[in-house]
Amino acid sequence: MIQSTERVHIDLGERSYDILIGSGLLGQVDSYADLPAGASAAIVTNTTVAPLLASRLAEALGGRYKQVQVIELPDGEAHKDWSTLNRIFDALLGAGSDRKTTLFALGGGVIGDMTGFAAACYMRGVPYVQVPTTLLAQVDSSVGGKTAINHPMGKNMIGVFNQPLRVVADLDTLDTLPERELIAGLAEVIKYGPIADAAFLDWIEANLDALRARDKVALAHAIKRSCEIKAWVVGQDEREAGLREILNFGHTFGHAIETGLGHGAWLHGEAVGCGMVMGAELSARLGLIDADYAQRIHRVVARAGLPVSGPRLGASRYLELMRHDKKARAGAIRFVVIESPGRACVRAADDALVAEVLDAHTR
Amino acid sequence: MIQSTERVHIDLGERSYDILIGSGLLGQVDSYADLPAGASAAIVTNTTVAPLLASRLAEALGGRYKQVQVIELPDGEAHKDWSTLNRIFDALLGAGSDRKTTLFALGGGVIGDMTGFAAACYMRGVPYVQVPTTLLAQVDSSVGGKTAINHPMGKNMIGVFNQPLRVVADLDTLDTLPERELIAGLAEVIKYGPIADAAFLDWIEANLDALRARDKVALAHAIKRSCEIKAWVVGQDEREAGLREILNFGHTFGHAIETGLGHGAWLHGEAVGCGMVMGAELSARLGLIDADYAQRIHRVVARAGLPVSGPRLGASRYLELMRHDKKARAGAIRFVVIESPGRACVRAADDALVAEVLDAHTR
Repeated sequence: MIQSTERVHIDLGERSYDILIGSGLLGQVDSYADLPAGASAAIVTNTTVAPLLASRLAEALGGRYKQVQVIELPDGEAHKDWSTLNRIFDALLGAGSDRKTTLFALGGGVIGDMTGFAAACYMRGVPYVQVPTTLLAQVDSSVGGKTAINHPMGKNMIGVFNQPLRVVADLDTLDTLPERELIAGLAEVIKYGPIADAAFLDWIEANLDALRARDKVALAHAIKRSCEIKAWVVGQDEREAGLREILNFGHTFGHAIETGLGHGAWLHGEAVGCGMVMGAELSARLGLIDADYAQRIHRVVARAGLPVSGPRLGASRYLELMRHDKKARAGAIRFVVIESPGRACVRAADDALVAEVLDAHTR
Repeated sequence: MIQSTERVHIDLGERSYDILIGSGLLGQVDSYADLPAGASAAIVTNTTVAPLLASRLAEALGGRYKQVQVIELPDGEAHKDWSTLNRIFDALLGAGSDRKTTLFALGGGVIGDMTGFAAACYMRGVPYVQVPTTLLAQVDSSVGGKTAINHPMGKNMIGVFNQPLRVVADLDTLDTLPERELIAGLAEVIKYGPIADAAFLDWIEANLDALRARDKVALAHAIKRSCEIKAWVVGQDEREAGLREILNFGHTFGHAIETGLGHGAWLHGEAVGCGMVMGAELSARLGLIDADYAQRIHRVVARAGLPVSGPRLGASRYLELMRHDKKARAGAIRFVVIESPGRACVRAADDALVAEVLDAHTR
């Protein structure tokens, strides 16, 4: 079956852009049509992705830009720091890149975050395009404009909001994605059901096997619907003042798991998957949803291949970690909870209740 | 004579803000009225300014914020780099600063640039206020929202546009400003006459002695009018796409002097002063203005105490340096020239003609 290109328009006034979703897009000249002209482009990627995809992208860009530079960074969250970011600046300045040079982020969330941040800062701003190559990056980093690097004292502490000119989500790049990363990406897809679209959760349940088998039609729909929902939320709250917080369903618990175990032990998506199970349980214990709906979320997370039990750090350690989360305000932990199927809100919760949830979902 | 507070409103839609200009403003609680509430503030300053002014500012802010932290950076352009910027992040994170923490830039252009950049990036953006303590910072950095750090391969290469919430320009801070820095600041004041307001050049000529004697009434007017003109230009071109380039009158030649001698040998304002003399000469040789008007600019720069002859680097070295300027486009040097008294535009010029100008104004 021939897969057509899906398009999601992200409406942000003069910062509006399109997300293209389809097979083979990365290597097609048309995917980059109408981008602003410039003498040069720079592909920012990592040592894992570069040998697989960089030359194909460079070729597609070759007709458009006189000079196409490939900047290869070391792979992994551990390198999402200033010194790696500075390698982008070194390479751009070394190649004589100017204010019209367009950056292309070719990789997962780490590459997208760093390239978007570098684009915001290089000569006070150059354009950039996201070419995400992981499911997580395609559904999550594609929308929202969040860019950042880590600081020794916290993840994503240093960054800016910076919207791309375009997102080119090529489904073929998922063919080579390790299984564990595909599953981690599914966590963010599943999230959009309970928080914003009850019918989408039905669809996910019906298509989960196809998604895990990397069926392109199923993946295209999952990515498109996830981006649409995220865009709807972000469109109402670009700078993260309110509604946007619901996108963090599962993330408060998830961040505690990631930080508690040391970053890298669990993938972000795995921690979010488990965090959603905890968040659903908390929602039920707060009397917002019935236990059956919490069970449904539990089951779909488990079927996706994601963990449903967190590490036994002890409830007090979890609470301490969550109180230090960037999103906590004046020491109060803000939990995203499901208030009814397809609707989320932000609530505080008694430590004792949270401890019960943690006892039930850690081992 | 009692000096009243002048106010310049910078109209940038939702990023609009006011510049307050007057004596004693820094220590007055009223200067900070109506700023968004927050639990904490951080004063970013340097080791030279801190002992003179930090405690007075901290006291004025004390009623508004529960916690006021003072972050002292080493003084000087040499420290306008990532590692110094990172000290701001370290201090903010160490003090538990959150997304509502307001930063106050207390110092000259270097402190303003770094604080504005840090504010843009800390947790993807916190508010900041400029409290400029040099004439240059009061007339120049107060308007435009340019923030940056230097990179080993170029000045101001890494930064963003970020507008402050307010600028508090306290004339009393100029009392302790070294003579040489006061004079350097006058270069940017003088600039606004030829490029945008012929009558302002008349006023400067009539009041230059008062300005050099630090007369507060004269300084207040010079700062106010400079900010108004810069605001008018920037308001039409916030992201530096066109008109804003006229603000770089004298800067193309000036940057070549700064880079050619090694940064720090001349103050930026000194290089700009000399660069304006060269720019005026070029304008006359291009037939745009008569030789008398170029002479007038020469005289006022000299009377201000600024250099009117550049170092003898050789015309070819100057041309090479100017061709590598960030503002050059595709190798062509863009000169801001005076097309008539009070009006500037951007022009290319033959190397031979530029060489004549350089021969006449270097020694």
